[in-house]
Amino acid sequence: MLTDRLTRDLYDEISRIPLIDPHSHINPHAAAAKSLDDILGYHYYTELAHSAGMTQAPLAKDVPPRERVRAILQHLDRIDNTAQYGWFLEIAQTFLGHKGNRVTSDDCDALCDAADRVMGQPDWEQQVLQRSNVEKVFLTNDFDDPLAGFDAKRYVPCLRTDDLVFHLDKPAVRERLAKATALDAGNADHLRTAIGRLFQHFKKHGAKACAISLPPDFTPSPVSSFDLTLALGELIAGNADAKKTCANGVFWMLAEHCREFKLPFDLMIGVNRRVYANGVYQGQDLFDQRTSLIQYAELFNAFPEVTFPISVLTSSQNQELVSYSWIFPNVVTNGHWWYSNIPAYILHDARARLQAVPKTKQLGYYSDAYKLEFILPKYNMYRRLLAQILADDFVRPGVYSETQAIGLARLLLRENTERIFGV
Amino acid sequence: MLTDRLTRDLYDEISRIPLIDPHSHINPHAAAAKSLDDILGYHYYTELAHSAGMTQAPLAKDVPPRERVRAILQHLDRIDNTAQYGWFLEIAQTFLGHKGNRVTSDDCDALCDAADRVMGQPDWEQQVLQRSNVEKVFLTNDFDDPLAGFDAKRYVPCLRTDDLVFHLDKPAVRERLAKATALDAGNADHLRTAIGRLFQHFKKHGAKACAISLPPDFTPSPVSSFDLTLALGELIAGNADAKKTCANGVFWMLAEHCREFKLPFDLMIGVNRRVYANGVYQGQDLFDQRTSLIQYAELFNAFPEVTFPISVLTSSQNQELVSYSWIFPNVVTNGHWWYSNIPAYILHDARARLQAVPKTKQLGYYSDAYKLEFILPKYNMYRRLLAQILADDFVRPGVYSETQAIGLARLLLRENTERIFGV
Amino acid sequence: MLTDRLTRDLYDEISRIPLIDPHSHINPHAAAAKSLDDILGYHYYTELAHSAGMTQAPLAKDVPPRERVRAILQHLDRIDNTAQYGWFLEIAQTFLGHKGNRVTSDDCDALCDAADRVMGQPDWEQQVLQRSNVEKVFLTNDFDDPLAGFDAKRYVPCLRTDDLVFHLDKPAVRERLAKATALDAGNADHLRTAIGRLFQHFKKHGAKACAISLPPDFTPSPVSSFDLTLALGELIAGNADAKKTCANGVFWMLAEHCREFKLPFDLMIGVNRRVYANGVYQGQDLFDQRTSLIQYAELFNAFPEVTFPISVLTSSQNQELVSYSWIFPNVVTNGHWWYSNIPAYILHDARARLQAVPKTKQLGYYSDAYKLEFILPKYNMYRRLLAQILADDFVRPGVYSETQAIGLARLLLRENTERIFGV
Repeated sequence: MLTDRLTRDLYDEISRIPLIDPHSHINPHAAAAKSLDDILGYHYYTELAHSAGMTQAPLAKDVPPRERVRAILQHLDRIDNTAQYGWFLEIAQTFLGHKGNRVTSDDCDALCDAADRVMGQPDWEQQVLQRSNVEKVFLTNDFDDPLAGFDAKRYVPCLRTDDLVFHLDKPAVRERLAKATALDAGNADHLRTAIGRLFQHFKKHGAKACAISLPPDFTPSPVSSFDLTLALGELIAGNADAKKTCANGVFWMLAEHCREFKLPFDLMIGVNRRVYANGVYQGQDLFDQRTSLIQYAELFNAFPEVTFPISVLTSSQNQELVSYSWIFPNVVTNGHWWYSNIPAYILHDARARLQAVPKTKQLGYYSDAYKLEFILPKYNMYRRLLAQILADDFVRPGVYSETQAIGLARLLLRENTERIFGV
Repeated sequence: MLTDRLTRDLYDEISRIPLIDPHSHINPHAAAAKSLDDILGYHYYTELAHSAGMTQAPLAKDVPPRERVRAILQHLDRIDNTAQYGWFLEIAQTFLGHKGNRVTSDDCDALCDAADRVMGQPDWEQQVLQRSNVEKVFLTNDFDDPLAGFDAKRYVPCLRTDDLVFHLDKPAVRERLAKATALDAGNADHLRTAIGRLFQHFKKHGAKACAISLPPDFTPSPVSSFDLTLALGELIAGNADAKKTCANGVFWMLAEHCREFKLPFDLMIGVNRRVYANGVYQGQDLFDQRTSLIQYAELFNAFPEVTFPISVLTSSQNQELVSYSWIFPNVVTNGHWWYSNIPAYILHDARARLQAVPKTKQLGYYSDAYKLEFILPKYNMYRRLLAQILADDFVRPGVYSETQAIGLARLLLRENTERIFGV
Repeated sequence: MLTDRLTRDLYDEISRIPLIDPHSHINPHAAAAKSLDDILGYHYYTELAHSAGMTQAPLAKDVPPRERVRAILQHLDRIDNTAQYGWFLEIAQTFLGHKGNRVTSDDCDALCDAADRVMGQPDWEQQVLQRSNVEKVFLTNDFDDPLAGFDAKRYVPCLRTDDLVFHLDKPAVRERLAKATALDAGNADHLRTAIGRLFQHFKKHGAKACAISLPPDFTPSPVSSFDLTLALGELIAGNADAKKTCANGVFWMLAEHCREFKLPFDLMIGVNRRVYANGVYQGQDLFDQRTSLIQYAELFNAFPEVTFPISVLTSSQNQELVSYSWIFPNVVTNGHWWYSNIPAYILHDARARLQAVPKTKQLGYYSDAYKLEFILPKYNMYRRLLAQILADDFVRPGVYSETQAIGLARLLLRENTERIFGV
């Protein structure tokens, strides 16, 4: 795919670096896909097919999986220009033996049959990991995940805290918390103890990070125990006005526990949920560009001992991220998230980071994948762009030798992850 | 101009696609220029010459046109670095037989004479259309335009609604509305009927779109008939506080009519009017980057049946547009507008769209021209950049064959316009 | 360093243009470095080393300079990917005879010795100026600077006004003002007289500009003498609420004096001070991307006779700057400031300016340097990027001949500065 010789050589070398993927949504009990429906059910395909004209009817639960796959494939010709289509094509070629440079609905049965065949092999998960050169994958675990029954050295637990910060008003969330901690977190002290128990549980089971996604207007600040207890009371009583104070209080408490338990706190900044209310599952969220890392200045100052790997949604905020991670010792750049995870933005954003942020403070990429098969094409996309930057900005101008450039790639793809998260 | 062979080949092929220009300010009764004054009177030249030091004296009505042309030409050497200068040079070369790569005030008389000669030909309009390979051009029609006396298959009417939404406080606008609809729109019901009559009139005369430009802080939301009637009363009584409610109410009503009359609603988002109050005519408007498409979430959700072709003014908001059109089925990308219509921004913005938005949801470009002669150089600028993106991102990496790449260009330059607007 | 022949040729030619550096923090009484500590003490190195893990201990005053240098050098391998590291390497190679493409802590003593040797030469300052091809350098002078004892033709004074606008609440600032003007500026009239005296003093000593850096939320507007007198009274009485009115009033008064004294007013827009409160000296400031030049519309309209060279901190705001300087005759683009001063952003920002802003209205670059040695590597970085843009966007597409391209560079690097500031 790469026409430039130096870039191709760098890409080939970089591809030999065993990956540590610092953020995914892999289910460790069903890490690999079991059918093509698991692949094309990924929201990138359902939402793009829907955006391009597909009704949501094929997505209903009672539709036979192969018919759903066929419906999505029938819309692929409308999105065959996209990077996301490219990931699918690469999966079909690499894992399903697909020949040629296009996939259409004519390929439906052949691809489904191939998927059933290969994905039904007992060692398929191992095959995918091996072919993708993946050593470890970070997970996204609900706070009440038992974290049992999988190899935490391979699949690294990560405490996801959106529910605690933004959904404590929901009785179901409070019940899950009570059940997980044997505590009724009705006041600030109990909540603190409960959260401590979650962290203990996660640490015991090998967790290496705490994580959260945040809306564009979120501006964390500390809340006193007294005020938080008051707000929790109101929240439980159904007063929505108390949500903001509770969110702030719980968030700050999480940061305190990250400090105590020595866990980095992944902040994924900028997403508004359910903007397209009638969108497909996981295809409803968008953003508001009017947000700033200045909103986190108090947090970054208050917790110098906590490392904050930051993901942002726009190139504009990436310039803030470049500057904030250049100045704050505890702020590091983290991957290319969601709507920023397309080549035009990755290239621009990664280039700026590589020119201005200490190389030891950059987590190059994560897959964000739900199924292992997506790690390979997503990382390949990133590695091609990284190779291009290394060739154009580092090797050709004489800044780095090829060996040094590959050393930089190794930091981005695994060593920084090892050091920052302690894996 | 293009040094890369593949890019040049693609450019040549793309240039053969007959254009449908989905947005212009062409006057169908005087579509082509009649003199060089018509060309250099375009605000891009008057505002840049003024910005570079020209007083506004030569722009006065009583100045002989050739002296105005001379004054502007005398300042061209200060802006010969700009894309806008490049359009003029290409017009001079293509249509006026100008030789060489520069235009200076020394060329004033020769160019004026050449313009008088060629533009005086009775079939000049046809010549320009043919040489520019233009099949149809969308217009921007005032709501009370009689829409008579021109071929609506060639010059496609489009209902421009800024006056209705933002200037209903002006008696002159209300009088024009009353005259056009035979209705005094003093309350919400009458206004609804009046707007219905405008849509009927426009549909009957072949209109294919409704359009509006919007300030950066505009956030549409529905207004009840009761509240709108109240606000209209206050507006007519001279209370400026009622403007916002009226704007919201009328805008929402327009969207309802777009749904009823099956017309796409072009939104041109982000312009503040008269920022440079003493600027030249049409050279006074600027923008505030602090705006977001989230402001339109309620609208996009409320009108799934209406297609919204969106124009934005900044690269930052283009990233929002890429994401919103990737998620919302009824949001499509539309051209490269005004301050974003320069190569550096087109390249970046078009590249991101081509990598992440379904190809069927992109209106590649429009001329925004006031005179036909500008369609050619503006589209050529876009086609060169498009050819470059197709070469670099699609053909060379093996994503598309050359034939497929040209097919994508055909969608962008005409087929999407045909399908989305029904022309 | 440049692999493309045309780009290299252009770079070589451009490098022959004698520079006028329109903004620096050079101390004319100690313009050149006296030791390596003067070089590596630049906040770019202390802040990046600190961000990459260095404690602030080596930065204490009582630490022997060579130990501080060693500590910073020991952290350079963590930032050897950055543009800032590149500047230092180029200084070591050009001025200190360093061989090879890397600098490590092993080089500490050799570099320090070399620095002591060369920088101890009595004509070192002249040598640096000559080797850097610098003709004039603008300074940043406190309002009470006596401006004596240096050649104002070489080191051009510039009245820096942050203290007057934002720190008049501090008794020390008011005392300095009283001392400098022999006036107690307790009301608007006295303040106006005092400021007039400062301008007289600066003009008499060859000042060519007034300058200020501004926070992202600053929105200048005029304040009546009556209101300003009231606000000054409250400010002096310790009421922090009066700060905003005083800032607005003083700022507007400065603009009036720029008009009267015919000085351009450099606005450096967007910095928040002390965001990382425990950061190293000068390594604490960051920004909020949510800012707009629309905040300055009233100012630009009110002072058509004053030229405003504008610096911005982000690429997003650069698009505003491109548009505002394309429309407003009195707005010109100024350099690539601070967090925007890295290749990825310079390339994008300069390219857009060159495509859309009159070439006579662009101040290409300034060094922002504290020591003369930094002018060379910073300008070289800019000249490489400028050569690349000229090659790719101007010479290769046939827009300009090589000679014309170099003429454009001459405008950017000196002639516009000469004309706009009258030097």
